[in-house]
Amino acid sequence: MAAAVVLGGPAGWWRWHRRVRAARAAMVCSRAMASKTPVGFIGLGNMGNPMAKNLVKHGYPVIAYDVFPEACKEFQDLGAQVTDSPADVAERADRIITMLPSSPNAKEVYTGANGILKKVKKGSLLIDSSTIDPAVSKELAKAVEKMGAVFMDAPVSGGVGAARAGNLTFMVGGVEQEFDAAKELLTCMGSNVVYCGEVGTGQAAKICNNMLLAISMIGTAETMNLGIRLGLDPKLLAKILNMSSGRCWSSDTYNPVPGVMEGVPSANNYQGGFGTTLMAKDLGLAQISATNTKTPVPLGSQAHQIYRMMCAKGYALKDFSAVFQFLREEETL
Amino acid sequence: MAAAVVLGGPAGWWRWHRRVRAARAAMVCSRAMASKTPVGFIGLGNMGNPMAKNLVKHGYPVIAYDVFPEACKEFQDLGAQVTDSPADVAERADRIITMLPSSPNAKEVYTGANGILKKVKKGSLLIDSSTIDPAVSKELAKAVEKMGAVFMDAPVSGGVGAARAGNLTFMVGGVEQEFDAAKELLTCMGSNVVYCGEVGTGQAAKICNNMLLAISMIGTAETMNLGIRLGLDPKLLAKILNMSSGRCWSSDTYNPVPGVMEGVPSANNYQGGFGTTLMAKDLGLAQISATNTKTPVPLGSQAHQIYRMMCAKGYALKDFSAVFQFLREEETL
Amino acid sequence: MAAAVVLGGPAGWWRWHRRVRAARAAMVCSRAMASKTPVGFIGLGNMGNPMAKNLVKHGYPVIAYDVFPEACKEFQDLGAQVTDSPADVAERADRIITMLPSSPNAKEVYTGANGILKKVKKGSLLIDSSTIDPAVSKELAKAVEKMGAVFMDAPVSGGVGAARAGNLTFMVGGVEQEFDAAKELLTCMGSNVVYCGEVGTGQAAKICNNMLLAISMIGTAETMNLGIRLGLDPKLLAKILNMSSGRCWSSDTYNPVPGVMEGVPSANNYQGGFGTTLMAKDLGLAQISATNTKTPVPLGSQAHQIYRMMCAKGYALKDFSAVFQFLREEETL
Amino acid sequence: MAAAVVLGGPAGWWRWHRRVRAARAAMVCSRAMASKTPVGFIGLGNMGNPMAKNLVKHGYPVIAYDVFPEACKEFQDLGAQVTDSPADVAERADRIITMLPSSPNAKEVYTGANGILKKVKKGSLLIDSSTIDPAVSKELAKAVEKMGAVFMDAPVSGGVGAARAGNLTFMVGGVEQEFDAAKELLTCMGSNVVYCGEVGTGQAAKICNNMLLAISMIGTAETMNLGIRLGLDPKLLAKILNMSSGRCWSSDTYNPVPGVMEGVPSANNYQGGFGTTLMAKDLGLAQISATNTKTPVPLGSQAHQIYRMMCAKGYALKDFSAVFQFLREEETL
Repeated sequence: MAAAVVLGGPAGWWRWHRRVRAARAAMVCSRAMASKTPVGFIGLGNMGNPMAKNLVKHGYPVIAYDVFPEACKEFQDLGAQVTDSPADVAERADRIITMLPSSPNAKEVYTGANGILKKVKKGSLLIDSSTIDPAVSKELAKAVEKMGAVFMDAPVSGGVGAARAGNLTFMVGGVEQEFDAAKELLTCMGSNVVYCGEVGTGQAAKICNNMLLAISMIGTAETMNLGIRLGLDPKLLAKILNMSSGRCWSSDTYNPVPGVMEGVPSANNYQGGFGTTLMAKDLGLAQISATNTKTPVPLGSQAHQIYRMMCAKGYALKDFSAVFQFLREEETL
Repeated sequence: MAAAVVLGGPAGWWRWHRRVRAARAAMVCSRAMASKTPVGFIGLGNMGNPMAKNLVKHGYPVIAYDVFPEACKEFQDLGAQVTDSPADVAERADRIITMLPSSPNAKEVYTGANGILKKVKKGSLLIDSSTIDPAVSKELAKAVEKMGAVFMDAPVSGGVGAARAGNLTFMVGGVEQEFDAAKELLTCMGSNVVYCGEVGTGQAAKICNNMLLAISMIGTAETMNLGIRLGLDPKLLAKILNMSSGRCWSSDTYNPVPGVMEGVPSANNYQGGFGTTLMAKDLGLAQISATNTKTPVPLGSQAHQIYRMMCAKGYALKDFSAVFQFLREEETL
Repeated sequence: MAAAVVLGGPAGWWRWHRRVRAARAAMVCSRAMASKTPVGFIGLGNMGNPMAKNLVKHGYPVIAYDVFPEACKEFQDLGAQVTDSPADVAERADRIITMLPSSPNAKEVYTGANGILKKVKKGSLLIDSSTIDPAVSKELAKAVEKMGAVFMDAPVSGGVGAARAGNLTFMVGGVEQEFDAAKELLTCMGSNVVYCGEVGTGQAAKICNNMLLAISMIGTAETMNLGIRLGLDPKLLAKILNMSSGRCWSSDTYNPVPGVMEGVPSANNYQGGFGTTLMAKDLGLAQISATNTKTPVPLGSQAHQIYRMMCAKGYALKDFSAVFQFLREEETL
Repeated sequence: MAAAVVLGGPAGWWRWHRRVRAARAAMVCSRAMASKTPVGFIGLGNMGNPMAKNLVKHGYPVIAYDVFPEACKEFQDLGAQVTDSPADVAERADRIITMLPSSPNAKEVYTGANGILKKVKKGSLLIDSSTIDPAVSKELAKAVEKMGAVFMDAPVSGGVGAARAGNLTFMVGGVEQEFDAAKELLTCMGSNVVYCGEVGTGQAAKICNNMLLAISMIGTAETMNLGIRLGLDPKLLAKILNMSSGRCWSSDTYNPVPGVMEGVPSANNYQGGFGTTLMAKDLGLAQISATNTKTPVPLGSQAHQIYRMMCAKGYALKDFSAVFQFLREEETL
């Protein structure tokens, strides 16, 4: 161990220290809640709220903060400690999860005047589950490292329902040795925790998936629409696509045409699901990443524009499969 | 039967007559080849050649024609009768399969000066396996019906390999009562024969599938490229996509990135497979159908343009998954 | 002259004959109307009506036909002869102008059961001012030539207002020696008659212009919208563009942003002008021509899709500059 | 004056002070160079070099800095003072012009460890002529204001030739009262200095113009290509477009088709002019601005992708009108 300390430097020492605690906590998992060390949680919105609750359920004492005090009240009732700032969270917990709506929010929470970095303890593990620009994740990681702490990006896939049910997928980027420590916490909230590579690759994996998702959803919608106009029955067309090379998740699991499938947003007037405005946001991140890396993304770029136009035409809150409706004649709206 | 004749009119009678013969042929299937009635085959190119051979293998006497006489020679050696024109084929066979490269060729073979319709017998069954504009299929069907014969469109999916192995997929459009008669022949050449609806829907199904295929292939290529530039390992990214909502045939079965999969064109310098120029052709048909039906196909349209640009930049004969290469930096070409 | 007859064949003779008559008619231009030989006019819709009236004003006896009899009534009152079919027009006039809404209509009027070609006289001059697929113009030209007559395509630019004022622009394709004869008639209806080359190039010139127009209009609309959102005053931005390399007709003559210019559709809630549905039609023709010639038109194709989506979203009858409105937030609609 | 000081605060006082000096300098313009107060210039690359030389020619003592020392040497020979960092420039000059390749460079030069802001004097006027993200311009302006100085963005249009000839166009954003002071310097380097509005609007105007330029250039290229394939003579087509509604700067002043015009890059194998890679950069900025403001830019976005693909296919250093060549068949390359 001493050698590890020497090789790893101070952060290495803390990492070991944290692991010992984590191991201890795991061993006593069946004992009282108080035996686990506290976990900070910043950002208690639609997603953060059920995620933090799952931590509480798994016996972690939660140190909570949200920019809207009312978002914290519920957690006070659940026995969590509520603090006044991200800095206060960092003072009381050496493992913190953040779940924030956008890059500027994440910057503020980490590097702002009362941000985590003002009082972060050496060796702390900071996990950001926000979906943000991977370049910002890298910036934050650098700033965190300077303070002797560890940063990982761990955006999620799966919506509010998955967050409640605790079966989100986490895509994790960061130093590989820290992955197990992160996984310990993330498995309380998700059923699938995937290590993707260095910092930023969690974000990269997420926005890549969502870009391809958007492309295949729009593709499925326009293909189904064309087939219908050429005289094909939509159920039959879906069946043919799904046994052929046009098959994709959007055609076989989440078909955008009303009447083809049960239990998907298209069967329920495009309510629930993954909002068009959220898809537009993720496509914006993909676009920025592509621009910064000079990568041509001709269809991803067009998908972004189409979801932007949909937001401008009243589809912002509908599920993103409503692109089928957007492309059809007005009369059928 | 008499009632059927009365209801169905002359074409109905022939249909019955043909079925009796077909049934008889089926019954004697194990007997000598001569006991089956002959089948015409027009268009003995890359695809037509192995398809017609499979008919021969199944014991059908083939009456062959191709605009290039040398294409027929091989069939003469196999015992097929070779004729001088589509009209001659129509004179000698009341079941004819056509496999032609484009709409104008199909028009010529059916309605040209020496076309099938010059000598087609009442009640004949004409099956067009070419991939052409569904509007042209409908035109041909009308002209064929006027002569008291039956027309079905039955384009295939699967390339030369599948044609040789006899496991093509046929997507069939036409009068439903004729489907069984068509299927009898098509199952000699394909493992999957799907009834799609009225005339033209076979074409519609095929071009819809290929349009969605092109969209998801380009989408997969640009997504993989973006992910790689953001630091993701391509195999890992493919794995993540394939267990997530970005999953599609192009990502999980035919991945365009060299090194991700074995046995696909991307593992073999994009040789073999489905040529870029053929994909561009099918996207052109999709585009024409979309334009004629006033259907917006924003990504299908863009996919068409990208494959056109690829053809103009030297990718015409490479597999269509080479779009990955097209989108990468020159240095890697 | 005899030599001309020999060289030119029968059609040449008629051409000469027609010219003599035309010359004679021109000479007596100041005399009574009856001294001019009659001109057929088929298609008396929004555009054809004022065009035919301008022929009447210039003293040409008009032989009229429209598929809707009521469209002819007005012309009867003006002294025109109204006939029962295109064939009847061809029987009574050896110069005919057609102005039809689409390729199928043009085919019907020329080659249909009662079409012009049933009774066309040798040496007749048939001028088609419809905007149709140049490939169809070429087909019609071939059919017309077989009958010993001459076909020219002469689509117009300028809307109903220009048709009334007699200052349309005609883009003319066909045999160059016939251009003067065509021009004689077309100058009665337009101020600008441009010879473009062989048959079909009139159409080509028109759809090329309109494709570039659509691209630059959408480009102007999205650029103005972006500039406004970035804090620029729209008038100032238009001024800067118009003195810079972004300048185009859509920015300097027909700006799509309300308040930037007077006297354009954007100043009048996008009423009047050139309807979105007509632009979508012309872009469809451009797309079909591009597909047939395997020409990549990435932005023209996208422009087509955008105008299709606009038609599907209630903009069909608004001026095509309403794309600015389509791209803005709903709240501002 | 006292009142102005009260109203304007400390910065106001300096502004007045600077103006007095500027006025004095202007008055003595015909006198010796030493009578003008020095001007800092940071970034002496392809554009900055000739711009700074024009300041020298107009009699301004220049305080120079570039990250590459060799870039400064020439200026030392011209009598300019060369410094070791942006901070040093700020110490010796209260008017500074910066001309840098990208947003990160600009951030470094202003807010880096040895950046301008380390030693900027109150009331200094800092003019950034780089083409960068307008959001970064706003950030820099805020940081500059905090130090009691003034920031203006003033990107240029016109290339190296215009920079040498001193007839660039400057698009200026910032506080209007400072515009005259900025103009005094900028008119030494440009013939056209346009006030665009608050900070960031100079950038906005530039990227808007270049986005529309890219769209109309690609549009012109694909339109000309389509017309040629449809049988039109390119010169004739250009003439028709230029007298019609398709007219734009790219068609009438900078036509991309070889043989249509003299004295443009297309007449010289696309050498010189405005490089494809620079256009791709500006389109990237437009894309980022559009993404940040949630503005749909369907064609601007596609134009960006096309220039990215061109960079990946060997066109990076050719003039951006080479898109015509990119879209044509390989045989003609």
